[in-house]
Amino acid sequence: MAGKQAEAIGKLVVIGVGLIGGSVACGARQRRLCQETIGVVRDAETARLAVEAGVVDRACLNIEEVAPKLGEGDLVMVAVPTLAVEEVLRQLQVCLSSEVTVTDGASVKGSVAEAARRVYGLLPAQLVLGHPIAGSEKSGVSAANPNLYVDHRVILTPTAETGAGHLARVRQLWQGLEAEVVDMPIAEHDDVLGATSHLPHAIAYSLVDTLAHDIDNPNIFRYAAGGFRDFTRIASSDPVMWHDIMKANRHAVVHSLDQFMDNLTRLRAAIERSDGDYLLQMFTRAKTARDCYTRLSSPNDETPE
Amino acid sequence: MAGKQAEAIGKLVVIGVGLIGGSVACGARQRRLCQETIGVVRDAETARLAVEAGVVDRACLNIEEVAPKLGEGDLVMVAVPTLAVEEVLRQLQVCLSSEVTVTDGASVKGSVAEAARRVYGLLPAQLVLGHPIAGSEKSGVSAANPNLYVDHRVILTPTAETGAGHLARVRQLWQGLEAEVVDMPIAEHDDVLGATSHLPHAIAYSLVDTLAHDIDNPNIFRYAAGGFRDFTRIASSDPVMWHDIMKANRHAVVHSLDQFMDNLTRLRAAIERSDGDYLLQMFTRAKTARDCYTRLSSPNDETPE
Repeated sequence: MAGKQAEAIGKLVVIGVGLIGGSVACGARQRRLCQETIGVVRDAETARLAVEAGVVDRACLNIEEVAPKLGEGDLVMVAVPTLAVEEVLRQLQVCLSSEVTVTDGASVKGSVAEAARRVYGLLPAQLVLGHPIAGSEKSGVSAANPNLYVDHRVILTPTAETGAGHLARVRQLWQGLEAEVVDMPIAEHDDVLGATSHLPHAIAYSLVDTLAHDIDNPNIFRYAAGGFRDFTRIASSDPVMWHDIMKANRHAVVHSLDQFMDNLTRLRAAIERSDGDYLLQMFTRAKTARDCYTRLSSPNDETPE
Repeated sequence: MAGKQAEAIGKLVVIGVGLIGGSVACGARQRRLCQETIGVVRDAETARLAVEAGVVDRACLNIEEVAPKLGEGDLVMVAVPTLAVEEVLRQLQVCLSSEVTVTDGASVKGSVAEAARRVYGLLPAQLVLGHPIAGSEKSGVSAANPNLYVDHRVILTPTAETGAGHLARVRQLWQGLEAEVVDMPIAEHDDVLGATSHLPHAIAYSLVDTLAHDIDNPNIFRYAAGGFRDFTRIASSDPVMWHDIMKANRHAVVHSLDQFMDNLTRLRAAIERSDGDYLLQMFTRAKTARDCYTRLSSPNDETPE
């Protein structure tokens, strides 16, 4: 992006001020990354909470109230559940100037790109798709945290259609929030996240459901060991959000699930035949990979409960 | 146990001063729960470390050095990997008086009971099998922690053969270490732990192995989200220990794995056919169960890295 100096951000409009959008809004507001921070929320109570908590300067209930007044230099962030992005884009397509930069924070990028093509007939230059790799099993406006993205990675998935100025503006927002911005093709993003995030969530939900409902022991959780709490933390994540993600990225998730189930089936067979060599080699290989990952990843990737 | 007042513990001999045994030794020593704490270790370097770190009063390399001098009121804790317990019992059977209380900390109880029957021809009254539900992915004498068991559950699995005085003495040790002691039949222990501990470890090792070796993307871990670190922490556990546990409890583990894989197969099918109702119901059910578990479990069940 050398030579492409982004202008300062004007108005920042965040549609959906839950964990992801609320953290962008209050992080940008506290750091004075934009002239005004406006939240678009679904009810008056959330609007009141968002303003009271200092997450936004002001909040309104309809995109149509704020979108027509935006122009070049302004930025709209769509931070609603993955499958709700299309309906928001449909509203923006009607009332938003093509000069306004639009980005999102959805966990799946291929489905959002498809939605945009359905709405606009193509991927508009103003639309910069992105995904901050930061989360928590918490949700809602009360989970907003101005430092959520500090030292976390944000993946942007620009295409040939993406406008360079719009891309620079979105990059500037995330860098202002102290995130590390990485570019990646849409398909690679969905494969990587399908394997490292969506697959673990499917496994965690399934494990907890198995123990709670398939196993005939009402006290099963009473004697769960310490590691169980960490291992199942992601099963406390928002069911609606994860319903959307699994549907939106179903091909990649099913592919990852198949690879995992193949591996687990081999492990099951090794346990059944008491194949000590297999067990020791596999556990050692996995421990080495996991210890190596721990050294690579930042301490801020830790998710406290 | 009313009316069965346990005598004070005399000598406490801990065979194997890793995380489990070392934490018993230094916890008992700091709280003055016994007259002397003696470690039996495998090499001179570990002996030196264990004494220097204050884990034990003294350490020796052979059970035969210390066992013949023990009598009623003394307690031997066998804290070696699950499949190594039999060899230790074989040595104790030769050189230890039947008046000395013996307990263990192995993660599987059925296999240890079978080993004892092979060694002694029956379950000796002096042998009280137990399992502290506290752990960490750390191991070795440097992981010993005098407060590891505070507010953690310890499961004892006494049988009709277990001597009441021996049972009381072991209970007294764990209560002295501030643990909550629970009694449970051997088979129930192995089923419950198979489902809540051994199954999650099998899954975590298999997931990390899948991502590290089956998926064709060398950067896969770079973009792993925050929850991934918690989710895979248990895959950094000691491979030898878990090799032993999977072999020792293989019937229960395979049974739990089958139930989990059935559940996961149903989830996979629901994702593939985009069955939103199924996904939302299952994720909601699992989140409710997991949130309920979190409220039940003690904050000390948290395993910091």
